[in-house]
Amino acid sequence: MRLKNKSNAKTAETRKKRLLSLLEQQGISIYDHLDKGKFPQFVIPSRSVSNIVYDKKIRQYILGSASAVRSSRNMSQLRSYTQLAWLAFFVNRLVREGKSSTLRDIYYSSQAFSIDFEDQPESDNIIVDLEAVLTSPREEFHIFPEERSSVFGDLTIEYTVPGYEGKRMNLSDHPDGYLIGPSLSSAELVDTSAELVIAIEKGGLFTRFVEEKVHKKFKAIIVDTAGQAPRSTRNLLRRLNSEMGLPVVILADGDVYGEHIAMVIKSGSANAAHLRELTVPDAKWLGVWATDIEKYKLPTIPMTESDIKRIYDLQKDPRYQEGNWKKQLEVFLKLKRKAELEAFSKYGLTNITDKYLPAKLEESKSF
Amino acid sequence: MRLKNKSNAKTAETRKKRLLSLLEQQGISIYDHLDKGKFPQFVIPSRSVSNIVYDKKIRQYILGSASAVRSSRNMSQLRSYTQLAWLAFFVNRLVREGKSSTLRDIYYSSQAFSIDFEDQPESDNIIVDLEAVLTSPREEFHIFPEERSSVFGDLTIEYTVPGYEGKRMNLSDHPDGYLIGPSLSSAELVDTSAELVIAIEKGGLFTRFVEEKVHKKFKAIIVDTAGQAPRSTRNLLRRLNSEMGLPVVILADGDVYGEHIAMVIKSGSANAAHLRELTVPDAKWLGVWATDIEKYKLPTIPMTESDIKRIYDLQKDPRYQEGNWKKQLEVFLKLKRKAELEAFSKYGLTNITDKYLPAKLEESKSF
Repeated sequence: MRLKNKSNAKTAETRKKRLLSLLEQQGISIYDHLDKGKFPQFVIPSRSVSNIVYDKKIRQYILGSASAVRSSRNMSQLRSYTQLAWLAFFVNRLVREGKSSTLRDIYYSSQAFSIDFEDQPESDNIIVDLEAVLTSPREEFHIFPEERSSVFGDLTIEYTVPGYEGKRMNLSDHPDGYLIGPSLSSAELVDTSAELVIAIEKGGLFTRFVEEKVHKKFKAIIVDTAGQAPRSTRNLLRRLNSEMGLPVVILADGDVYGEHIAMVIKSGSANAAHLRELTVPDAKWLGVWATDIEKYKLPTIPMTESDIKRIYDLQKDPRYQEGNWKKQLEVFLKLKRKAELEAFSKYGLTNITDKYLPAKLEESKSF
Repeated sequence: MRLKNKSNAKTAETRKKRLLSLLEQQGISIYDHLDKGKFPQFVIPSRSVSNIVYDKKIRQYILGSASAVRSSRNMSQLRSYTQLAWLAFFVNRLVREGKSSTLRDIYYSSQAFSIDFEDQPESDNIIVDLEAVLTSPREEFHIFPEERSSVFGDLTIEYTVPGYEGKRMNLSDHPDGYLIGPSLSSAELVDTSAELVIAIEKGGLFTRFVEEKVHKKFKAIIVDTAGQAPRSTRNLLRRLNSEMGLPVVILADGDVYGEHIAMVIKSGSANAAHLRELTVPDAKWLGVWATDIEKYKLPTIPMTESDIKRIYDLQKDPRYQEGNWKKQLEVFLKLKRKAELEAFSKYGLTNITDKYLPAKLEESKSF
């Protein structure tokens, strides 16, 4: 087993220090303004559509240079200014105390401080503002979503959460997989014998892969994205790629949603354009491609109207203008049919792991 | 740490043998019929509404004594007879080979054998027929749903799945919790120091409970039901109660759905009346009760029309005709407002674990 992570040791600690330092700077700025008799303010990168641009070089959506000032001087901004200042205070406490929270919790917690949010969408929006101010995903401030995906394979992690600091766990010990929750997300990645990461869209297939020992046969870490990959999962995939040097491949249903699941893992989504830590630009979409449907004679189901509308929508996205991404959308549109990952079961439960996966891994060397 | 499970040792192996023996009986019956020159048939307990009755003694819905014959002689039954015979064959193979499957997989797998299912609902329905024939939940035949919940606490399990036989795991090692998948569901429960099981409806709260060391403070195993508890979770709760002798308490949102989550854990659902292994008759619903909303001054949100309709529906259910179950429905109907578990965060993130949980556990001694 190779220790791949030497140069990245203690990244969790580094990330925490960086975040606390950014929060401190915001606090200092407030005091500076007050000392100088000025109204304190936040400078927030603009998240308006006109400021979201696709950056070909780093291969993801990013925010342009436009920014907005939110000032306590402006009566119409005072409400959201106060909400943001409170959130920064609250997040600082969460991070220092090592406590985690949810979007829903934040909404209710504000009431204890007489901070007035009309409803949860309003508090969710302020959380995104803080992400933009600190250029850090909310998971780093310990605000986690409900949905959770899982991971399995020979990967040793070291926890950093209170009570578990320094404790190590090998993620091949529990064959149902390890939940990618706050503890795993904040853990150090220590070492692995794996040479590949396979992200797969569905829990049922994830279980099949573990049972068929894909982790051994292909020296792989297997990640269940449970549909569209949650951000904590995308962050883990990125870290497995950048910190451990592992290539990432993606298997999703053979439809437009599956293709976009792969795209979002690879290059993010427009509404997270203010963040840079959620993409794996070199990730490869293995399938199920539209062209695989005929090639592998898969049983299909007809597309719905909304499937077809979704194809037209994605055809306007700059990332679908060339190469295989463009071609597969076109073939889907021609077929007007789709195939799920489970469709391979027609040829036996292990057909997907015995035949399809090795064939596509071989094919992927050329794309 | 006490070994609580001595008399139940090797229960997983026993369950597997029982199931294979039942399947074998069905197979023998087919050959017997053929030997005698008769058409083979299945006898299936009737699942029609008129045959579903609430049994006060065992405190769950059960099927009455009516049963239906599905015969290969009857042209209109030949199709579903063949489907059921194929499923029994396929399940026998799954169980013997220790492979797991999903509802979706079964639908596609049938195509390899030229068994014709119109769509997945048709194959799902045949799976329920087989459950009724074998009086065993489909999880025992290795057919698992996609949704997965999780568990955390000092519980040592011993795996029985291929490649992990005899390997043990303590479920307090990974603080994000352990997925209740096929491996955990089929594992032996070996020992525990816990004295209580707390089932909680939401992942965010589950994480809070782990962070606040509820497992240590209350000597508890914590189970995240992730909404309405999946059957594998209800089965685990039942086993923790019956095999390990642990009392089970339930925390869910303060609304009609939360109340029913507790009821289903306690006494099952009408559409699983053909099964007996999914209930915990002595489980206690700790809250959030309608009466807790005022008592603990929780922030509330108004009920929707469908919330109110759901209350009227449940008032017709025989299990809601008396005691606290009846009373709380009435108070919900009077308030026309509901409160989530996260609402306690108004009084601090740890209010629910520091104040509410101990108060309700104390109160529960008297109900």
